[in-house]
Amino acid sequence: MQDLNCIFCKIAKGEIDHCRIYEDEKTIAFLDISPASPRGGHTLVIPKEHYVEITDVPDDVLVALAKTMKKVAKALKTYFKCDLNILQNNGKFAGQYVMHAHFHLIPRFEKDGIEIEKWKPQKYKPREMEVLRTKIKKLL
Amino acid sequence: MQDLNCIFCKIAKGEIDHCRIYEDEKTIAFLDISPASPRGGHTLVIPKEHYVEITDVPDDVLVALAKTMKKVAKALKTYFKCDLNILQNNGKFAGQYVMHAHFHLIPRFEKDGIEIEKWKPQKYKPREMEVLRTKIKKLL
Repeated sequence: MQDLNCIFCKIAKGEIDHCRIYEDEKTIAFLDISPASPRGGHTLVIPKEHYVEITDVPDDVLVALAKTMKKVAKALKTYFKCDLNILQNNGKFAGQYVMHAHFHLIPRFEKDGIEIEKWKPQKYKPREMEVLRTKIKKLL
Repeated sequence: MQDLNCIFCKIAKGEIDHCRIYEDEKTIAFLDISPASPRGGHTLVIPKEHYVEITDVPDDVLVALAKTMKKVAKALKTYFKCDLNILQNNGKFAGQYVMHAHFHLIPRFEKDGIEIEKWKPQKYKPREMEVLRTKIKKLL
């Protein structure tokens, strides 16, 4: 099922430009264009189908999401030699802004000053996302 | 595998008092004694075996953790009528203090002022955790 007005459904269908680093039958992972980390690599893992919260996600899709998270976490940790937050917000009072279930994977470094709840969105330089995608995909 | 010095291993084995709300073959869920939420219900979901980070957790255990999270998330949302953060920190720069992989499930409410990265630990009143456990277990 898809929600025609949902930006993550559009990304899953390839209707909006994005930097996809992983895909399987039920999930995709792509770079957040406004990463929390100044060094980038902040990645979103989402189901291809539209579910709002984790409690709405069927078990088979949940299992696929968990496995994708682990794969992407390994690649990010290998590439950045970083620590990592995994954050999944359910509902607006929990800071969910896109109402399509998603997991944030956020690389963390010593004294990086990131506040994962209200992070200051960083920007990639031109071409930086593409270069990063290529490097991370090789580790997946 | 267990780590003899790990507090979560001791909790998993029942060697330390705790407020367990769910258990299956591979996972347990218990109430955090210093919850982020003033209304309580902050729950930790952990594997019974000792793994440090999500990337160390074997797929079968990861699948069990994901399913336990969803079950507990449903019960918490039903009981508190709340929104919910799920947070999993890997490594000290990501705010991991107990080096046994764990997921925080944190009930969230309008303007609750919680900062999930550096929350102010709340306290339960005497018997409050026991009462809460009984109520949440009925919803699981």
